[in-house]
Amino acid sequence: MHYTCPVDPLERAAAEAADAHDELAGFRSRFAGADDDAPDRLLYLDGNSLGRMPRETPAVVARVVEQEWGRGLVGSWSSWIGLATEVGDRLAEGVLGARPGEVLVGDSTTVNLFKLLHAAIDARPGRDVVVCCADDFPTDRYVAASVARSRGLELREVPADLDAGLDTDVLAAALDDRAAVLLLSHVAYRSGALADLAGITRLAREAGALVVWDLSHSVGSVPVELGASGADLAVGCTYKYLNGGPGAPAFLYVRRELQESLRSPIAGWFGARDQFEMGPVYEPAEGIERFGAGTPPVLGLAAVDVGVGITAEAGIDRLAAKGRAQGEMIVALADAWLAPHGVVLASPRDPARRGGHVTLAHPQAWQLTQALIARGVVPDFRTPDRVRLGPAPLYTRFVDVWDAMDRFREVLTTREHERFPAERARVT
Amino acid sequence: MHYTCPVDPLERAAAEAADAHDELAGFRSRFAGADDDAPDRLLYLDGNSLGRMPRETPAVVARVVEQEWGRGLVGSWSSWIGLATEVGDRLAEGVLGARPGEVLVGDSTTVNLFKLLHAAIDARPGRDVVVCCADDFPTDRYVAASVARSRGLELREVPADLDAGLDTDVLAAALDDRAAVLLLSHVAYRSGALADLAGITRLAREAGALVVWDLSHSVGSVPVELGASGADLAVGCTYKYLNGGPGAPAFLYVRRELQESLRSPIAGWFGARDQFEMGPVYEPAEGIERFGAGTPPVLGLAAVDVGVGITAEAGIDRLAAKGRAQGEMIVALADAWLAPHGVVLASPRDPARRGGHVTLAHPQAWQLTQALIARGVVPDFRTPDRVRLGPAPLYTRFVDVWDAMDRFREVLTTREHERFPAERARVT
Repeated sequence: MHYTCPVDPLERAAAEAADAHDELAGFRSRFAGADDDAPDRLLYLDGNSLGRMPRETPAVVARVVEQEWGRGLVGSWSSWIGLATEVGDRLAEGVLGARPGEVLVGDSTTVNLFKLLHAAIDARPGRDVVVCCADDFPTDRYVAASVARSRGLELREVPADLDAGLDTDVLAAALDDRAAVLLLSHVAYRSGALADLAGITRLAREAGALVVWDLSHSVGSVPVELGASGADLAVGCTYKYLNGGPGAPAFLYVRRELQESLRSPIAGWFGARDQFEMGPVYEPAEGIERFGAGTPPVLGLAAVDVGVGITAEAGIDRLAAKGRAQGEMIVALADAWLAPHGVVLASPRDPARRGGHVTLAHPQAWQLTQALIARGVVPDFRTPDRVRLGPAPLYTRFVDVWDAMDRFREVLTTREHERFPAERARVT
Repeated sequence: MHYTCPVDPLERAAAEAADAHDELAGFRSRFAGADDDAPDRLLYLDGNSLGRMPRETPAVVARVVEQEWGRGLVGSWSSWIGLATEVGDRLAEGVLGARPGEVLVGDSTTVNLFKLLHAAIDARPGRDVVVCCADDFPTDRYVAASVARSRGLELREVPADLDAGLDTDVLAAALDDRAAVLLLSHVAYRSGALADLAGITRLAREAGALVVWDLSHSVGSVPVELGASGADLAVGCTYKYLNGGPGAPAFLYVRRELQESLRSPIAGWFGARDQFEMGPVYEPAEGIERFGAGTPPVLGLAAVDVGVGITAEAGIDRLAAKGRAQGEMIVALADAWLAPHGVVLASPRDPARRGGHVTLAHPQAWQLTQALIARGVVPDFRTPDRVRLGPAPLYTRFVDVWDAMDRFREVLTTREHERFPAERARVT
């Protein structure tokens, strides 16, 4: 299916027509609260921060809690023991373009980044530089910096444009023969800029470095194709476009051919070979399980599995095509309606260079965010002066995007955002 | 209340009498499946591996999933943001004898061990030995060994008797001026041997070393009293006696006075000061939050909170007293009924030196475990030849223990365990 931005995005009828032809329209009713049709309904454009709850999830979680734990008790470990790799396999094949046995679900994105960065550094002895992007998500930069420091390596932060993302030529210059590993987000959290996964992987390989890709903002929103792109290592989050729930366990990917040569710095019993032998010495498990650590979070894994299943069923190509068309609509409407009020596009204008969200800049972005929420539009604020709009193609319609932009225009026209505090609350 | 082993443990009536006077009897009905009175009911003596499900838990989890996530969406982060410390505070005050702001719930026991071991080593520069117990739980030994190796330190494994646990004099000799940190389980996973928390903490302090206590097998079953004992660092599991659910998030404890001087090796955004400033450089948060890493597992935290609440309500002193009396009953019945069949006590005989479980050794322990499960008694097998019996005072009655031992005797008398495979399955 070919999704395009409605012909005349300024007309709501065009958005309605796009929805009428949406092959993914049926998925909307699979998410709680997403199929509200009231004019004053909540317009949730924060699927890139916390995805909506699939309607199946409560029953799946209840079954795990009441039946498997409550009745099955410790005997249920016979089915839970492989859950982290089983959910990983479904994610690998259904969403990531990877093979079974290459993805493990568990721990947080932060902990997984930590594991793979250390493993990558171990695999490049003699190289003394960790490369990261100066505008990457905080936890990525913090982990890169602290891992580099603890290993006595230099951290090389490649500057990036807050709006346009990383310049590949600038990055290429940073990938010299001292570079052990590059840590980079596939889609930039602030601007939504989409990095060239295959191209940068190739660049790094030519320089002899490994790349740890952070797929948190791309998994479920744009094609990832880890296998075809030649990617070696990746981590990512499941509570955004995969709709796995708040604080859902993250995932890690290690290309099969590399697994045997890499070791996790966190040698736990769930990464050990013959785990229940409880032997005297840690021997890593053979496959992707060696990157496990402690007991996997069973409730969280069950919820992730639901979200992964729905995403795979919808198909990442359709989701990405629809997401791109919605992004184009946001850009067109922002140009027409919001730019006169000083709103500036803070994402790449070329849709081929954008992930699933579009970011807008305005000096009063914090107040605008509050005013939008008061009007039933949920975006999120990002420093220093950005409003992120993240439609989720699984459950966001074109008219939802249109109506959200219409309310945004109204806020600006009436200047109602100026009634909200200019000083930021500590927790957003 | 004073619990004692029933006067004549060989008589079931004595067990019934003990139950009739049990102040904790009312807690039994708060756990799914625990108040079955049928003669052929399941006798679950594996509360030290996976605790039973509190009846409140499904509704609490459902509320978090359906209301907070499903309806509240990303806005619910205003209440989730403090959950890891709030549940930690309830655990600190209600169960651990610690102060608010000293306990954080999240990550796995393995990851928390990893964090605190690195932090402790950093705090003892110039010292080059990590001390652990040669019979400690695998993940503890594996983490200690790999952390020591990665830091270029020596691992000193103190030998321990598989039945009696660690000899304090042997341990004292290992705590010399090279020792940076000792990692030790408060209750030994195999034998149930109880270590002297205050005494060993003092020994280590006199030697200039820190102790990371693993409370996985003691939290919820014996008094811990972290504050009074002077303990500096601890981690522990919440899915055993705390009934937090399969793979529930673990906890870590850092004495308040030490927090400012310690840093987590995993510098994640949930451990950063002013997290949503997303600043260029990682600055650790001020309190226990600095030991956080990635986004906390909200569903798991909600389930842990229920288990912590019930444990605190029952009171650790009563739970420990009842558990000790039940342990004495197991020992008395094993002596009388099982010893003639070659079963040997593999836990300290002195109840003051035991935690909440009692371990029995027999050359056919694996077959006995299978036969017991077939008879509706759930113990667990531990290498090389052990059967662990872990009554949980919150929901195990004296008659449940009596009946379990009676079935154990029947298995041995009829030799029905010999009909089960002698070769161990890989997953137990």
